Amino acid sequence: MYELDAATALTRADETRFTLEVSDGWGIYQYPNGGFLAALGLRALGELVAQPDPMSFTAHYLRPAQPGRMTIECEVVREGRTSATAQARLIQGGKERVRMIAAFGDLDANEGTTLETASPTPVPPLSECVSIGGPPMGSTFADRIELRFVPGTAAFLEDGDVEPQPALGGWVWLKDERPTDLLALALYADAWPPPVLNVVPRVWVPTVELTVHLRRRPAPGPVRAWFRTDHIVDGVMSTDGKLWDEQGRFVALSRQLARLKQP
Amino acid sequence: MYELDAATALTRADETRFTLEVSDGWGIYQYPNGGFLAALGLRALGELVAQPDPMSFTAHYLRPAQPGRMTIECEVVREGRTSATAQARLIQGGKERVRMIAAFGDLDANEGTTLETASPTPVPPLSECVSIGGPPMGSTFADRIELRFVPGTAAFLEDGDVEPQPALGGWVWLKDERPTDLLALALYADAWPPPVLNVVPRVWVPTVELTVHLRRRPAPGPVRAWFRTDHIVDGVMSTDGKLWDEQGRFVALSRQLARLKQP
Repeated sequence: MYELDAATALTRADETRFTLEVSDGWGIYQYPNGGFLAALGLRALGELVAQPDPMSFTAHYLRPAQPGRMTIECEVVREGRTSATAQARLIQGGKERVRMIAAFGDLDANEGTTLETASPTPVPPLSECVSIGGPPMGSTFADRIELRFVPGTAAFLEDGDVEPQPALGGWVWLKDERPTDLLALALYADAWPPPVLNVVPRVWVPTVELTVHLRRRPAPGPVRAWFRTDHIVDGVMSTDGKLWDEQGRFVALSRQLARLKQP
Repeated sequence: MYELDAATALTRADETRFTLEVSDGWGIYQYPNGGFLAALGLRALGELVAQPDPMSFTAHYLRPAQPGRMTIECEVVREGRTSATAQARLIQGGKERVRMIAAFGDLDANEGTTLETASPTPVPPLSECVSIGGPPMGSTFADRIELRFVPGTAAFLEDGDVEPQPALGGWVWLKDERPTDLLALALYADAWPPPVLNVVPRVWVPTVELTVHLRRRPAPGPVRAWFRTDHIVDGVMSTDGKLWDEQGRFVALSRQLARLKQP
C-alpha cells in the first residue's frame, strides 16, 4: 500500500463519523500539512457520497492540527443525480481543526464543450527543473514529496543572482511513486513553499482558507504546478495555483487566503 | 434606505436563525441572483460574529432559490481574536438552497506587508465603456444593477465584427447609487453575464460553487471588474473574476465552478 493511502485510511465509527491516528509523517514542522488534512476530509466524504470524484473543495483551517487521534464528522448536504455536496469537520481533542465543504461528481460522466484558451504551462520539462538541497521546509512532509523547481523561481532557497518574484513552481510527485489521482492533486495543490517567501523572507503563512477545483482525472505520473501571489495587502495574501499532468493537460486550480506572520 | 439594504434586511427568529421574504427584484429570470443570495448569508453571519468584515466566503448552490419566505440558519464555527469562521444555510420550503462558509476579520486592523505585482486593471475609464441595450439577461436584477462593458468584450450581446473571447468586464454599480462596500462587492462578483456566452451561445450556466476573497474596503463609487473562463472541460468551467475600486485599487477576487447546460 502506498504511503498516502495508508496515512489517509480511516476507521468508520458510525454512519457519519470516522477516526484515525494522524501520522507524524506529513508535517510542516510539527503541523500536518494543509493539503494532507484536506485529503483526509475528502477520503471521509468519498465514503459517504455516491458520486466518485471531488470536483471542488474548500477547507477553512480553524486551529492547527497535530499528529494523533482525530475524528472526522461528516454530513451529506445534498445528493443529486449528477452531483453531491458534503461537509466534513476534522476534530481533535474536542476542538474542530478544519471545516471542509466539497462538491462531488463523476468526471467520466461529464460531457459537453471543451474549450481551453489559457496560456500553456510555464513549467519546462522535468529534466530542466532542479532539486533544491535539503527538505524545503524542514519537515517530515519533505520525506514523502519530491519537488523539482523551475530554475530561478525559488529565490529564497537558491544562492546566486536570482531576481525574486512572488511565483514559483515545477514538478511534484510522491517519493514512493504512488500514481497521481485526484486525492494526490489535493495534496500537490498545497505541497509547495509559499511563493511569498521569495519576496518577504522568513514569514510564517497560516492558511485561512483553501479552495481547489479538480477538473480532470490526471495521468498517473509527476505533475507540473505553478503558484503566484499577486496581491499582498496589509499582511494578507491570496495565492493562485495551477496544475497540469505529465501530458501537459490542465487538471486543477487552487487558491488560498493566508496571513503573513512574523515567526 | 438603499434597495440592497432593504432587500437583505433580516428578522431575527432566535439566537442563530433569521427570516426574510426574498424579493423578486433581484432575479435572473425567476431565480434570485447567486451573489444576492451570498449577500443574504453574509448579512446574517455578520450579525453573529464580532469581526466586522467578510474576508473570504464560499457558497455552494444546492438547489434554485425563489422569491418568498426564507430561513437562514447560522453557526459560528470559531470566533478568534483576529478572525472568525461561520456557516449559513439558506432554507426555503424545508429544503436547503445554499450553504455558505465564511471567514471574517477586521480589514482596518490588518497590518503588515503590502506588495502588489499583478498587471493593472484591463478595464479602461468609465467614459470609454458602453451600455448594451436592454437588460443583459432579461431579469429584474438588471433593474437594480448598472453595467458598462469594455467595448468588444460582450461579443454575444453586440452586433458587428467582434472577435469572441471567453472574457468580459467593465464597470458596475447599483442604480440607486448605494455606496460600494464589501456587501456590494459580493454582489458585483456575480453580477455579470458569464463570459462563456461569448464562445458557447445560449447556454445556461448554473453555479456549483462561488468563492470570493474580499481584500480591501472599496471606495464608494463604481467598481471595475474583469472575468475570464480559461478552461471549459467536458461542460464544466471555472470563471475567475477580479475587482478594482474607482481609484483602481484591487479589492476582490472571485472564482466559480459552473456547469454548462443546454436550455
